Amino acid sequence: MMPSMREAVDRLSPDIRRVVAYHLGWIDADGREVIEPGGKAVRPALTYACAEAVGAAPEAATPGAVAVELVHNFSLLHDDVMDRDTERRHRPTAWALMGEGEAILAGDALLALAQERLIDPPTPERLRAAAALSEATADMITGQAQDLSFERRDDVGFDECVAMLANKTAALLACSCRLGAILGGGSAESVEALGAFGRWLGIAFQAVDDILGIWGRPEVTGKPVHSDLRQRKKSLPVVAALEAGGSPAEDIRRMLTSEGDLDEEALALTAKLVEENGGRSRAQEVAADALARALASLDASLPSGRSRDSLLEISNFITAREF
Amino acid sequence: MMPSMREAVDRLSPDIRRVVAYHLGWIDADGREVIEPGGKAVRPALTYACAEAVGAAPEAATPGAVAVELVHNFSLLHDDVMDRDTERRHRPTAWALMGEGEAILAGDALLALAQERLIDPPTPERLRAAAALSEATADMITGQAQDLSFERRDDVGFDECVAMLANKTAALLACSCRLGAILGGGSAESVEALGAFGRWLGIAFQAVDDILGIWGRPEVTGKPVHSDLRQRKKSLPVVAALEAGGSPAEDIRRMLTSEGDLDEEALALTAKLVEENGGRSRAQEVAADALARALASLDASLPSGRSRDSLLEISNFITAREF
Repeated sequence: MMPSMREAVDRLSPDIRRVVAYHLGWIDADGREVIEPGGKAVRPALTYACAEAVGAAPEAATPGAVAVELVHNFSLLHDDVMDRDTERRHRPTAWALMGEGEAILAGDALLALAQERLIDPPTPERLRAAAALSEATADMITGQAQDLSFERRDDVGFDECVAMLANKTAALLACSCRLGAILGGGSAESVEALGAFGRWLGIAFQAVDDILGIWGRPEVTGKPVHSDLRQRKKSLPVVAALEAGGSPAEDIRRMLTSEGDLDEEALALTAKLVEENGGRSRAQEVAADALARALASLDASLPSGRSRDSLLEISNFITAREF
Repeated sequence: MMPSMREAVDRLSPDIRRVVAYHLGWIDADGREVIEPGGKAVRPALTYACAEAVGAAPEAATPGAVAVELVHNFSLLHDDVMDRDTERRHRPTAWALMGEGEAILAGDALLALAQERLIDPPTPERLRAAAALSEATADMITGQAQDLSFERRDDVGFDECVAMLANKTAALLACSCRLGAILGGGSAESVEALGAFGRWLGIAFQAVDDILGIWGRPEVTGKPVHSDLRQRKKSLPVVAALEAGGSPAEDIRRMLTSEGDLDEEALALTAKLVEENGGRSRAQEVAADALARALASLDASLPSGRSRDSLLEISNFITAREF
């Protein structure tokens, strides 16, 4: 992965490359190279494993792995600006450190680069992959727009919240799998089945992320405790607790619509109310159900083998994060 | 043009479509349809005329005309956010009216849509067009990054300012011409020649725009008088006047780096100093020289015919705007 990502990013102009390299954790705030950049790169891992799953050498999937990672980072750069998030992975976000315009442009450049690289050279597989990536990108943007619109509304339902995260998060994970299967020359059926696996995995992933956003420990999440409540996000547990109604829902709503910053006590109380009103368990049900469906898709399409083990390992890694 | 633009925009999800429709002037701030949206659409006009120039029916160019207009509007949406511009064509900008996140997402959606539509179906011509569009998009983003970096620097030279606007503005105008020639099935030579025409025209266009940004009348520009000075933009006339040095340059520099808003008197004085120190005439030389080169490219590749007349008319329209 690393070499081909570096090669793609090296095509950017110096001003933009600097922002991207910082965002990706390749350089620090002073421009010094980071020795072990790390980073989980779940999406490329899915792409490679799905190419293997259809019997191809993982290298066949490289253009897809690079493309999904570029699109993912385009969305992180822009989402951080929109959500006014100042920290990511224990470091200042790119916009907070380098400027908002710079982060917007860096995201734009990654989106443009992803499509450009994927269709060059334009083999039939790469063109199918590009069409799948376009669709997923559009879904992802739609999901983020839905998420933004939720902030202004006080009648967000649980089902539309799940639909939003299917767009915002699951579409690109599904696409990561599809691209591996497509570039590996898989049949239409295996592209579908592995895509379904990725989609359900994505929903499980986001449900877990929403739980961690309230109850996750800062060491695990890289964010302050109660982070999503602090930002008054209408995440899955919150929406579920609001939908459950009653006086706890009224208390939660009052807290979320109050003026000024919420102090630690108010945050802890809100988290407790969300949990008592069933928000946490309902989000956990979504995660468990989606994970079961993901594994069922996998069983149907890929009953055994090394790539199955890889995919199970990735599933485990992204859904069984410590709370 | 209009029907195919509408058709493309109709593919966006409702939240995003609303922002785009407002930005494009199709609906007003209350969501009511605007009867005569107007808008100049110079880029699609170039694309159509260049398809005709290589002997094709203009319809052959429609996918390219839509793509360049989408990419152009992606950049306007994002540039307005980055430059904090609150007005465009006598209306509040999309971000100012509808929110910054909304405008960023709408831009993202247009960029993704442009590539998606252009390669569907993936004929050889469309793929060549997509590669040209990717290159131009990357150049445009690079140009905007250069422009942003200029704001932080006080040593911007005239030549790098011209290089910046060649990226920021001229690359997409060149691409608009190339796409018409490519989709019209033109030879490599005519694609090159019409691309060169578009590129020089783009430089002339931006030089004129920079002159209008200081000395243009609000009725013509749709912006307040001395708009670029108010925003302390390092536009072509300002950079030329600074590079000319002497005490006027020092006075201009002092004004541009002063704290707080510049009042009308200070703005008028700065405009006068920029003019007296040769900034206006040097920008006019760039515009005149670029226009001459554009017309020379046209003479070489297209000595006569209806499409030549169209291209001359567009040249005239965008460079001879009233000051």
